[in-house]
Amino acid sequence: MHAAPPHPLAPLSAHEFTRARDLVVKSYDSTQPIYFRQISLQEPNKESLVPFLEAEHADSSVAEDTPRPARCVRVEHDLIKQDRHEVVRSVVDLDAGKVVSSDVAPAYPYPYYTPDEFSQFLDHCLRSDLFKDAMSEFALPEGFEVTIDPWPYGPPENEDDPRYMQGLVFARDARKEHPDANHYGYPIPIIPVMDWVTKKVVRVDRLATGGAGDGLEPAARGEKPRVLFAGAKSAEWIPELLEQPVRDDLKPLNVVQPEGASFTVQPDGLVDWQRWRFRIGFSPREGAVLHDICYENRPILYRLSFSELTVPYADPRSPFHRKQAFDFGDGGVGRQANSLALGCDCLGAIHYIDTLLTGPDGSPVPTKAVICLHEQDNGILWKHTNFRTDKAVVARARELVVQFICTLANYEYIFAYKLDLAGGITLETRATGMLSIVAIDAGKTSPYGNVVTPGVLAQNHQHIFAARIDPAIDSYRDTQVVVEESHGVKMNPQTNPHGNFYEVRRQIVHRSTHVDAEPRLNRTIKLENPVNKHPSSGKNRGYKITAPATQLMLADPDSIQSQRARFAQHNAWVTGHRDGEFFVAGEFTNQSRAESGGVSDMMRRGDWFTEEADKKNGHGGHGGQKSSPVVWPVFGFTHKAVTS
Amino acid sequence: MHAAPPHPLAPLSAHEFTRARDLVVKSYDSTQPIYFRQISLQEPNKESLVPFLEAEHADSSVAEDTPRPARCVRVEHDLIKQDRHEVVRSVVDLDAGKVVSSDVAPAYPYPYYTPDEFSQFLDHCLRSDLFKDAMSEFALPEGFEVTIDPWPYGPPENEDDPRYMQGLVFARDARKEHPDANHYGYPIPIIPVMDWVTKKVVRVDRLATGGAGDGLEPAARGEKPRVLFAGAKSAEWIPELLEQPVRDDLKPLNVVQPEGASFTVQPDGLVDWQRWRFRIGFSPREGAVLHDICYENRPILYRLSFSELTVPYADPRSPFHRKQAFDFGDGGVGRQANSLALGCDCLGAIHYIDTLLTGPDGSPVPTKAVICLHEQDNGILWKHTNFRTDKAVVARARELVVQFICTLANYEYIFAYKLDLAGGITLETRATGMLSIVAIDAGKTSPYGNVVTPGVLAQNHQHIFAARIDPAIDSYRDTQVVVEESHGVKMNPQTNPHGNFYEVRRQIVHRSTHVDAEPRLNRTIKLENPVNKHPSSGKNRGYKITAPATQLMLADPDSIQSQRARFAQHNAWVTGHRDGEFFVAGEFTNQSRAESGGVSDMMRRGDWFTEEADKKNGHGGHGGQKSSPVVWPVFGFTHKAVTS
Repeated sequence: MHAAPPHPLAPLSAHEFTRARDLVVKSYDSTQPIYFRQISLQEPNKESLVPFLEAEHADSSVAEDTPRPARCVRVEHDLIKQDRHEVVRSVVDLDAGKVVSSDVAPAYPYPYYTPDEFSQFLDHCLRSDLFKDAMSEFALPEGFEVTIDPWPYGPPENEDDPRYMQGLVFARDARKEHPDANHYGYPIPIIPVMDWVTKKVVRVDRLATGGAGDGLEPAARGEKPRVLFAGAKSAEWIPELLEQPVRDDLKPLNVVQPEGASFTVQPDGLVDWQRWRFRIGFSPREGAVLHDICYENRPILYRLSFSELTVPYADPRSPFHRKQAFDFGDGGVGRQANSLALGCDCLGAIHYIDTLLTGPDGSPVPTKAVICLHEQDNGILWKHTNFRTDKAVVARARELVVQFICTLANYEYIFAYKLDLAGGITLETRATGMLSIVAIDAGKTSPYGNVVTPGVLAQNHQHIFAARIDPAIDSYRDTQVVVEESHGVKMNPQTNPHGNFYEVRRQIVHRSTHVDAEPRLNRTIKLENPVNKHPSSGKNRGYKITAPATQLMLADPDSIQSQRARFAQHNAWVTGHRDGEFFVAGEFTNQSRAESGGVSDMMRRGDWFTEEADKKNGHGGHGGQKSSPVVWPVFGFTHKAVTS
Repeated sequence: MHAAPPHPLAPLSAHEFTRARDLVVKSYDSTQPIYFRQISLQEPNKESLVPFLEAEHADSSVAEDTPRPARCVRVEHDLIKQDRHEVVRSVVDLDAGKVVSSDVAPAYPYPYYTPDEFSQFLDHCLRSDLFKDAMSEFALPEGFEVTIDPWPYGPPENEDDPRYMQGLVFARDARKEHPDANHYGYPIPIIPVMDWVTKKVVRVDRLATGGAGDGLEPAARGEKPRVLFAGAKSAEWIPELLEQPVRDDLKPLNVVQPEGASFTVQPDGLVDWQRWRFRIGFSPREGAVLHDICYENRPILYRLSFSELTVPYADPRSPFHRKQAFDFGDGGVGRQANSLALGCDCLGAIHYIDTLLTGPDGSPVPTKAVICLHEQDNGILWKHTNFRTDKAVVARARELVVQFICTLANYEYIFAYKLDLAGGITLETRATGMLSIVAIDAGKTSPYGNVVTPGVLAQNHQHIFAARIDPAIDSYRDTQVVVEESHGVKMNPQTNPHGNFYEVRRQIVHRSTHVDAEPRLNRTIKLENPVNKHPSSGKNRGYKITAPATQLMLADPDSIQSQRARFAQHNAWVTGHRDGEFFVAGEFTNQSRAESGGVSDMMRRGDWFTEEADKKNGHGGHGGQKSSPVVWPVFGFTHKAVTS
C-alpha cells in the first residue's frame, strides 16, 4: 500500500467498498442473514476536513503525510429477524481496519426501498391470491398483461404499521410484442399493499373511478367482471411503436468541440474548468454532490446538494392521499439514476462518471455513466456597443453542466448544477417522463385532475424540492447569512423629497430560522463573508440566492402529508451545521407520519451563528449550539389541468 | 404594378417608404421646414385584417383579389415653428395615393428623441458657454477629453417645460488614442440641460458627490478648480486596450448545422419552422414584433411585442430623480437596435433581417441585421426510461430564437422570443452593458448604491418591463382570460378527509383589470378558447402565462416616477383591444408627469369581454366597449449593491 492515500472526498474504490463489506460481515455470526442496503463513503467531519482543504488550497501538492481525516465507509444493512428487519448503520474505518461505530436505527419510520426491493414487487403481487382475486373482478382485452409500478406506501394509518409497499396496477397490450408498450393508458383501479417482512400482499384497495359529483367512495358496481379498456388505445412513447413516423422537420444541430472539452476530471472526482475547481461525489440517496467549490482558489461552497423532493397528490379519495413520494428518502435518486449515453442525452464533448451501487449481498454493483459533464453555450453573457463608434464587444455565456437523471416509476427528474463564467452557480431541475394516472369512468371529468385521454385521469399534484447549501464564502469559517429587502419609502423632505428613493434593508440571520419568499420586497438570502470586505464598496463579499418564489405545500398543515414534509411549508430554512445532516425531511421518510430529524427539528434546536446571538443567548437554548449556517432553499411547481 | 400586392403585414419596401414621404411633403407648402421622426408600416385594423388572415389560413394561396386592408404608412414628423415644434401624425394610404389622416399630437408630453437628436447633443453642449463655464470648475488630467451620454430628461418640474435633453458627462483618456477607451470610470459631477427648440444649454446642474451622512445637497467646495481623477484608472472593455491578454481557458464550442437551418424566412417576414408559422415585423419603437403566431395552422397570438421598459433610479439627491428612462417611449428600442453579426452575437445557422429606419429628411436609412433568427438546443425536452427494460427515449429541446439587441447609452438589452417544440413561447430579456455611474468622493460609500471602483458610484435602480400579448387562442375571435389559483382546503370529512386536497379556483376576467402576482396561490393568467373544448378533458384549450413574480415600482406611488409609469404598479393588466394601442405607458413618455393613454387609462375606460359582463354592464360604463382582451405582463429586476 505505497500509493498516495486517496483524497478524503474521493469516491470509494471497489477495493475499499469490498473491504468495508467484509469487515462488517466479519463482525457478525456467520448464520446471521444480512441484507445490504447501501455502502458509501462516510464523508469526513467538517472539523477534520477543513484543515486538510485549507492546506490543499495553500499548496495544491499536499504531501502524503499531510494530516487527513480517517478514511471511513458507511454501511447500511438489515439484520433479518423472524418478525422484523433491524436496520443497522455502521461506520468502518479503513485505516484502522475495523467497524468503529454501529447502531440500530429507530424502528419507525422505515428506510428507503432498494432497487432490488422495487424489482421484486411485481412477482410477489402476481403470486398473491388476494391480488389474483382482485384482478378476477376485471376482464381485460384479449392479449393484455398485468404490470405494476411499485410505489412507496406513503403516509401510513398507524406509526407501527409494517413496512409496506403499494403498487399502481396497469395493463399492457402484449399483442404489440414489445416490452415497452405503454401501460400508462390502461390503469386498473386497484392498489395492492405488501408487507416487506412477510412478502405477502395484505390488502388490495379498490379505487374510486367516479367523476365530478360522484363522492369519495368507490361506487358499488353490478357488472362482474367489469370490462376494462373496451376500445381504448394507448399512445406509444417509443419510436418503434409509433403509428406515424417520428418527426423529421428539424435538421441536425451538432455541437462540435474540435479541441475537446475545456474541463478536466480526475479519477478521484476533482474537476477543473476555467477558474473553477471542485470535487464531484455521488451519493446513493442524493445523486451528484459537489464538494469544495472554489473559484480562483477561493472557496465558495463547502458542499452543494439536492436534498429531497416530495410529490403530494391532491385527490382526496382514499387511498390516493397515500400517493406522496419522497424521492430521495423513500427511494434515492442516486440509486435510481439513469445510465447516460453519448449523443442521446447530451451534446458536445461529454465526460461520464461511473459509480458503485450496492447489491443485496454487499457487493459493489458498477454502474456506468450516472453523471455527465459537458459544456454548453447559453447565449450572450455580456455585450456593449459604443453608440458613437458602433464598436461592439460580446462575451458568450459558456456553462459547465453536471447532470444526472433519475427514473422513479413513471417520472423522470433531470438535476443539474451549472457553473458559469461570471462566477454564478445555478441549480436546475426538470420534471419529465409520464404523468401519474389512475382510472376514471369513461366520459366523466373530475375536480381532482385532468382527463388526458378517455378513461385516464392525471391527478393534481405538487413537486416540492429542497436543496442544501453549505457555504464557505471566501473562507471555510466565516460565512454569514443575511436577508436583504428593498423597501419603498414615503416621500418626505428630509430623505426622499422626490419619492424615488428606496431603502435596502439588511438583517443578519443570527439564529436558525425559516424565510418566506416576498417578491414585493425582493426578499433575497445572501451568503456573505463579513471579514474580508470588498476594497471599493467596503461591503461584504457574497453570493445571493435567487430562488424563484414558488407555491408551498397546499395540503392542510395538520394533515399527515404536510406534517411529514414540514420543510415544504417555507421557502427557505437556515439551520446550524451538523455533520451528516443532509436530509431536509429527515433521514427516514418512508411511512413517516411527521418529519423526524428534518429541517423543522433542526430549526427548533435553536443553533446560533454570530457572536451577537451568542451574547444574547447566554449559551442557553434547547440543545442548540454555535454553528456555521446551512441554507435550504425550497422550490417547486403545482401541476394541474393540462389542456392542449 | 402587376406584382402580387404585399401581405398586409409585410414590412414597407423602400419604394413604399419613399412614396409615403413624398405624399406627405407634397401636402405642405414647400417653405415649411419638416423634420421627419419616423416612417413605418401602419398596421391594419384588426377588424379588417382578421378576415384576410382567416382566408389565408383556410387556403394559404390567397389570390391577388382576396379582399385585403388598404396598404397604409404612418408618418411622424415635426413642423418646425419659430418657438415650438408641432408633432404631426399622418397616415398615408398607398393604394389611394394620399394622406388620409393627419393630426397634431398634444403639446405635452413630448415625442421620443431620434438617433439624430442623440448624436447632435454632444456638439451643442461643447459649443455652450454655460457648459464651458461649468467644466472650468474642474481640472482633468492631461490628455483627457470630455464626452457625454445623452439621456432623456425624465420627469420634468413643470408640464410645460420646454423639450429638454440632459447628459451624463464623462472624461475619456485620449492618450490611449482609441475612441473606445472606457469613459465610465471618469464621471464628472455635472448634468447639462438643453432645450431642443433653441438648441441651447439652459442650465448645468451640479451634482452631489458625497457619501453616507453627507445629506442631499452638493457640498460647498473650496478648491478651484476641483482636481478630478488624480491617479484614477479606468478598467477597459475592448480587447485591444486590456492590460492582460483576453482569457484563453475555453476551447472552441461550435454549433454546426451541416444541412442549414430548419426554418425559412420569406422577404415579406413570413417564418416557417417546424409546426410554427408567424410573421416578423420591426417597429422603430418596439423592435421585433411577432404577428399571427400559428401552430399547425391554428392561431395562438394575433400580435406579440415588448411594449415598454422603465428604469427609475433611486438616488434621492436632485437631479438624480430625473434619471428615469422609458427606453421604448423616450428613445425606441428599434431605432437603437444593434446591427448583429455572424459568429459574434450568435452561433449556428443564422438568418438576419434588415430594416429601414428614417432619416431627418424622411429618407429610408437601410439598417442591416437588426433581427437575428437562429435555432438553439436547450437541453432535454422530454425523457422517459422504462425501469423494467432500461429502454430510454429522449427528445431534445430545440428552440427558434428571434432576437434583437439595443444600446441605450451605457446599457444594452437583449430581447428574444423563443418558440419551442412543445408549443411554448418564451419572452426573454437580458440586461447587460455598462452600469450607469456617477461620481462619489474618493473613499466614501453611499446608501444610494455601490462604489464599484474608487470615486465611482453605481446607483440603485430598477428595470421594469412590460410585454403586450394580443391573444388568438385557436380563433381570432374567442379568447377568454382566466385567473386560476390553487387553494389549500381545511381538512373536513365531506370533501377533504385526509387534508391532501387542494382546489383549483378559476375566475373568468369579465372586464378590464389588473392582476398581482401571488405565488402562495400559484396565481396564473390563462388565455383560453371557451368554445373549442378539448375532447378528453372537456376543458378549454389554452395557454398559461408563467411570468415570474418580480418586484414592482418602489418609488412612492405619489411620486412622478411612479405616476408616469403606473403600469409598473401591478404584475399584469388586462385591457380591451383598440387598434394601435401598443404602449403600456402611453404613446408619449418623454417628460411625462403622469402616464397618459397608458394601461391605467385603458383599464379605467372599463372595456368588457364577455356576454355575462355585457348583461350586467347594461351597456353603461365610462367610454368602455365590448372588446377582445389584451394582456400586459409586467416583470423586472431591482438592482443594488453588487460586490464580488
